[in-house]
Amino acid sequence: MKGIEPITRLVSALSALPGVGEKTASRLALYVMNSSDAYVRELAASLIGAKDDVMLCSVCMGFSETDPCAICSEISRDHSIICVVSDFKDMAAIEGTGSYNGLYHILHGALSPLKGVGPDEIKIKELLMRLSSSTVSELLIATGFDVEGEATANYIAKLTRPIGMTITRIASGVPVGSFIEYMDKNTLDRALSGRREM
Amino acid sequence: MKGIEPITRLVSALSALPGVGEKTASRLALYVMNSSDAYVRELAASLIGAKDDVMLCSVCMGFSETDPCAICSEISRDHSIICVVSDFKDMAAIEGTGSYNGLYHILHGALSPLKGVGPDEIKIKELLMRLSSSTVSELLIATGFDVEGEATANYIAKLTRPIGMTITRIASGVPVGSFIEYMDKNTLDRALSGRREM
Repeated sequence: MKGIEPITRLVSALSALPGVGEKTASRLALYVMNSSDAYVRELAASLIGAKDDVMLCSVCMGFSETDPCAICSEISRDHSIICVVSDFKDMAAIEGTGSYNGLYHILHGALSPLKGVGPDEIKIKELLMRLSSSTVSELLIATGFDVEGEATANYIAKLTRPIGMTITRIASGVPVGSFIEYMDKNTLDRALSGRREM
Repeated sequence: MKGIEPITRLVSALSALPGVGEKTASRLALYVMNSSDAYVRELAASLIGAKDDVMLCSVCMGFSETDPCAICSEISRDHSIICVVSDFKDMAAIEGTGSYNGLYHILHGALSPLKGVGPDEIKIKELLMRLSSSTVSELLIATGFDVEGEATANYIAKLTRPIGMTITRIASGVPVGSFIEYMDKNTLDRALSGRREM
């Protein structure tokens, strides 16, 4: 592919995508070259469209075509509970359960001193502003149970405790369908200490 | 991501790429949403550019910005030998060795009755036309050594034999750096029957 500038340029742009190395980028570029004109134009237009027509909801910081977004403006949802997630995909996963009817707040990341992500790099300020101007009775923290997710949860809990609402964390324990014997020690520890009366 | 039409559209366009399932497409779409405007515009423009500014060289069928391509129009190359490859990437690999100085012919595929790829689906007609109107002394067939590559090589050899030039096939054998004991039976068979005096 060397020497053909438009292909080199495409390979280099594709290589910037996560999980796409130069070899995969070359393969994708070749696929593009062999694709229909209509498909390539649709792919390019949908890239621009996603960037131009989607904004951040000024309330929950989620991606949306409108501001506020469909979830934040839905009257039938429970506006007294906010579920805090790291990522838009986490919100989509929780929405997918169909068993949560409150609002969300998307942080767009998790605290990670090693990666240089401090409180100012994620949408924590926006959460505090939101909490100060609304009457929320429960803050449900649903960041991950990895080191960064836990640190973020603890940081937010500490920061928001003075406001006085109930702060909860989604449960950690043995996943549905799993065998006890295969669980790691940390998960079993959590599952034991988080036991519930039945 | 459901419900946000521009994102759904992008995910669906990305899902059509080879090796990209819906989950990867969602991850890529989210990356795009979080990327700089400049990057997304560059990616879109390079897709369109690769499609619009790159054509097939009418001589060798390779991708090129000019017609004939740089290789076909290079006078210092040996115009008496044509190396037949399935794919543009194969040509790039052979060029990468620096030890071949002839011309190429890119088939854009290999014969595969199971996948519905017959002689008319790949650039065999163009090869025959080219051979009939030029004085080529050697046709070096460098399709793969898988079933489809072998079938393609045999088909082309049979078809072009009446023209009277020398027809050769790149060597099959034990790869450089490999141990004999780990070679499969077929490769060893080939390596034995293809032995050369030293």
